[in-house]
Amino acid sequence: MSEAVQTLEGWYALHDFRLIDWIAWKAAPPEQRRQAQQELNSFLQDWQQKENDKLGSTAVYSIVGQKADFVFMHLRETLEELNELEHAFNKSAFADFTIPVYSYVSIVELSSYLAKPGTDPMQDPDLLARLKPILPKAKHICFYPMNKKREGNDNWYMLGADERKTLMRSHGMIGRTYAGKVKQIITGSVGLDDWEWGVTLFAEDALQFKKLVYEMRFDEVSAKYGEFGDFYVGNLLDESGFGKLLRL
Amino acid sequence: MSEAVQTLEGWYALHDFRLIDWIAWKAAPPEQRRQAQQELNSFLQDWQQKENDKLGSTAVYSIVGQKADFVFMHLRETLEELNELEHAFNKSAFADFTIPVYSYVSIVELSSYLAKPGTDPMQDPDLLARLKPILPKAKHICFYPMNKKREGNDNWYMLGADERKTLMRSHGMIGRTYAGKVKQIITGSVGLDDWEWGVTLFAEDALQFKKLVYEMRFDEVSAKYGEFGDFYVGNLLDESGFGKLLRL
Amino acid sequence: MSEAVQTLEGWYALHDFRLIDWIAWKAAPPEQRRQAQQELNSFLQDWQQKENDKLGSTAVYSIVGQKADFVFMHLRETLEELNELEHAFNKSAFADFTIPVYSYVSIVELSSYLAKPGTDPMQDPDLLARLKPILPKAKHICFYPMNKKREGNDNWYMLGADERKTLMRSHGMIGRTYAGKVKQIITGSVGLDDWEWGVTLFAEDALQFKKLVYEMRFDEVSAKYGEFGDFYVGNLLDESGFGKLLRL
Amino acid sequence: MSEAVQTLEGWYALHDFRLIDWIAWKAAPPEQRRQAQQELNSFLQDWQQKENDKLGSTAVYSIVGQKADFVFMHLRETLEELNELEHAFNKSAFADFTIPVYSYVSIVELSSYLAKPGTDPMQDPDLLARLKPILPKAKHICFYPMNKKREGNDNWYMLGADERKTLMRSHGMIGRTYAGKVKQIITGSVGLDDWEWGVTLFAEDALQFKKLVYEMRFDEVSAKYGEFGDFYVGNLLDESGFGKLLRL
Amino acid sequence: MSEAVQTLEGWYALHDFRLIDWIAWKAAPPEQRRQAQQELNSFLQDWQQKENDKLGSTAVYSIVGQKADFVFMHLRETLEELNELEHAFNKSAFADFTIPVYSYVSIVELSSYLAKPGTDPMQDPDLLARLKPILPKAKHICFYPMNKKREGNDNWYMLGADERKTLMRSHGMIGRTYAGKVKQIITGSVGLDDWEWGVTLFAEDALQFKKLVYEMRFDEVSAKYGEFGDFYVGNLLDESGFGKLLRL
Repeated sequence: MSEAVQTLEGWYALHDFRLIDWIAWKAAPPEQRRQAQQELNSFLQDWQQKENDKLGSTAVYSIVGQKADFVFMHLRETLEELNELEHAFNKSAFADFTIPVYSYVSIVELSSYLAKPGTDPMQDPDLLARLKPILPKAKHICFYPMNKKREGNDNWYMLGADERKTLMRSHGMIGRTYAGKVKQIITGSVGLDDWEWGVTLFAEDALQFKKLVYEMRFDEVSAKYGEFGDFYVGNLLDESGFGKLLRL
Repeated sequence: MSEAVQTLEGWYALHDFRLIDWIAWKAAPPEQRRQAQQELNSFLQDWQQKENDKLGSTAVYSIVGQKADFVFMHLRETLEELNELEHAFNKSAFADFTIPVYSYVSIVELSSYLAKPGTDPMQDPDLLARLKPILPKAKHICFYPMNKKREGNDNWYMLGADERKTLMRSHGMIGRTYAGKVKQIITGSVGLDDWEWGVTLFAEDALQFKKLVYEMRFDEVSAKYGEFGDFYVGNLLDESGFGKLLRL
Repeated sequence: MSEAVQTLEGWYALHDFRLIDWIAWKAAPPEQRRQAQQELNSFLQDWQQKENDKLGSTAVYSIVGQKADFVFMHLRETLEELNELEHAFNKSAFADFTIPVYSYVSIVELSSYLAKPGTDPMQDPDLLARLKPILPKAKHICFYPMNKKREGNDNWYMLGADERKTLMRSHGMIGRTYAGKVKQIITGSVGLDDWEWGVTLFAEDALQFKKLVYEMRFDEVSAKYGEFGDFYVGNLLDESGFGKLLRL
Repeated sequence: MSEAVQTLEGWYALHDFRLIDWIAWKAAPPEQRRQAQQELNSFLQDWQQKENDKLGSTAVYSIVGQKADFVFMHLRETLEELNELEHAFNKSAFADFTIPVYSYVSIVELSSYLAKPGTDPMQDPDLLARLKPILPKAKHICFYPMNKKREGNDNWYMLGADERKTLMRSHGMIGRTYAGKVKQIITGSVGLDDWEWGVTLFAEDALQFKKLVYEMRFDEVSAKYGEFGDFYVGNLLDESGFGKLLRL
Repeated sequence: MSEAVQTLEGWYALHDFRLIDWIAWKAAPPEQRRQAQQELNSFLQDWQQKENDKLGSTAVYSIVGQKADFVFMHLRETLEELNELEHAFNKSAFADFTIPVYSYVSIVELSSYLAKPGTDPMQDPDLLARLKPILPKAKHICFYPMNKKREGNDNWYMLGADERKTLMRSHGMIGRTYAGKVKQIITGSVGLDDWEWGVTLFAEDALQFKKLVYEMRFDEVSAKYGEFGDFYVGNLLDESGFGKLLRL
């Protein structure tokens, strides 16, 4: 039996991807649309307040292409809070004009692969700040889930702890060369959702997502052991941007 | 031909995952909603009565994310009882406001991998109690189906009985370190549903699901031989909690 | 080129799995429901008459879980008869309350793997009776489609005829230990549907499905070469049982 | 780089599989049904006229099971003609009562694997006739798409041209033993649709589909290198047969 | 760690595949259809104007078969522009008669595999022109997404940079023999969508798509390392062609 790496966990995360039901939206009387949008704005403001109070964080982005029209990425202390948040939104008038298309449940995670040897990661203030992060308001978001492969000779979980540590260190090195260009939030989802991790990237220049993920693909951790789900990419959506998106 | 391990079976299980049709629920007149909810409460009380009478057991949880809004996990003596229970629910007014999204048919199972050598498992009162269990009312549930792999050299079913027993014992050891933190119900579904087993976990702290499943993934049984389906995670839903969920 | 085993074929089979559209059924006026059910009963009686006349056979079972509410398994002499039977049912008022969810087209098949060496299988009255069987009215049904694997070194179709014969004989031996407990109908579907075979099991005790399929999984034919589709399990549905199922 | 085999191409093919929307059909007023059916008959006659004029060919078959109710298989000189044909049908009143479920775009293809060594295939009148064929009006049809595998050591496209030629010759030999029983139309779809080839078989006895495909599965070309999509099987549908199918 | 090849990027691309909702279109009053089509024409003209102004490019093609009725392929400088373009179209009356079925987000990419050794690709005017191309108005389009494989020994990303370069050069050689017959636009989608690349081909003769893709399949880059998604093939659709498509 290979030794599991220790992980540190922070806030639970819910990525909530939805389409807008444009036909229903266009067919609704202006007064109904106005009221629905008001409700949406209340949610956006409540979530912002939660973030100001350091009780969680929410990122709102539009999504490019037909997979979704927007995503809410919520961070909260408990699964119950995420569930209440979902229910409150689903009960709103605005939700009637949306079609849920994909969601992801995970928890902000830091692995001790990244810890400096001989130090206690819980004493590292940088690591601690990353467990309950305020989500960036960068211009672009990229989300994808991933696994470590377990196929024939390419079985991550059969490697020794040292080998995994060495590989992850080189992997982390690539990430570090993108510091200042791409902000990365790793959330663990083993036992919570269908893949082992969720990766959420934030950048001012969306091209950096491609550069980073492509460069990593040649790194052995991804090349031999990475399995990737669907990719979602989008643009920042503040209250005024959401208003513009919904304006007919 | 490799020797199959002996299994003991108890109650049949039906996991019934459903979404709430929020648009229909919000559009329904209050009187219709009141009546539908009354019917739901009758079911919840009947199922509780069955559990009190030791004729079965039912767990009710909300699910986090878009995969489902809630799950009923029913244990009953026969497939006919599970089928009647489904039909009764489907005929109810409340069912009209739900959308079935996933179900799983299985039977509570104990494998003799876990039996102490040289003893008769049927004489072990602990094992016997686990075959017809009262489902925990823990704060959180986690469900996923799984297979043992049969791919190239990683073929569980081509291993000798002794090798499988040794591997399962080490696997069980991990589970035991979570005693008191995670309660695990294994249900067999070979010949009953699409995967070979269903795993239902209960815990007061949902993070323990992640810790347990992740730690096990490094154990050879999971690392080399485990194939996992979709994961569902949720929060306990008693009658009052269900009322709160449905309140507009 | 490896030599294909000879097969004997009997009646064509159509498994027709359907959900009941409960919302529509509950919304229909009683008179419309009464008429629809009357039509259903006419079909059930016609199919019974065909069976009495030895022109085919039909089994009707409810299905447990959300995959389907019931299955009609029809055996007929030709594909044209199966097609007419489908069309007649689809034109009925009752069909409007059902949602087709899965079907399977195949033909009752006996392989000469099972033939006694040195004998002509067509002279074996037992084999002959199994080609145009009257379907059992056992309490439970189990259906699943399957392939023989063709992956890397695990390639059934690259084995020599003798090796396949030896493996199948040992496989058949397991089946024989379930004689009297499980009745098995093998239907071939190469060139007819998406898998190579359909397996339909009948038993008074549904647990025997699990015991049989699980024990076989350790047999090399299944362990190395078996690929399995979705499993459907259910309970016998006679005319009165169907009436009870539909009663609101 | 392995040498690609030369191919000869004839007419483009569109297989258009559709369900009948029975609920809508039964609900339509008789006059609307009569008119829709008249339009359908016009199409059937136009397509027959095109065939008489040697400008294409069309086969119409009902499909057994829930996958589809019928298929139109059209052969035409250009993709534009196939597209116009689709659009014309989709604009018809009858199309409103159908639900598209699957289609396949390909082009009639003959590979020079089958050419006699030392001869120019374009001088072979038999080959030429097969490039723009009049589709048979046999009692049964079978359609499936397929690939040549590219997995690990089983990689068709890494074999030498000679090895591929030898293997295909033995494969073709099996086909030839079914001459007079099964008529086979191979259409290439590399760069046109999701699989590399479509195979359409015609026979008076549907059992011959199973015999042929099963026997071929033991041939190395299929056993090691064949990947198969979904299979559709059906019965000839002439104008009067279509009328019977639609009669309520 | 293997060295990633350098890439050059130009315009972002959105492929937007849609079905026409023929039933709704036929049911709409002529005045509503006329207005919807007018809106569509405005979009087509706006997009043409953007192309004239060298601010992007748009190709419009009908698709053969049931996968889609048409595709808009848009090139724009930023993801925000693509998103606005989508939203504007979705808000139009014409969009109500369309059903989104598939989309692809990528960015025009040139890899330095193709660069002449010892030269700076940014000084190559041909390469530069290909980064922000005016899309061809050829008679036919073919689109498919693809990956480089990472399976066992067939792992593109574990090859050395030199080996990859040699393989790609031979691959490019095949492409060059189709110069004048097939115009190829490669778009990178690592970190943007579910596959690593999108390939869009344009040709006057659709058969050349098959010839090119089939010939390449025998080249080691495709044979061993290519993984292909769904293929879409279609015919040029100018404003008058779109009018003809929509005329009842």
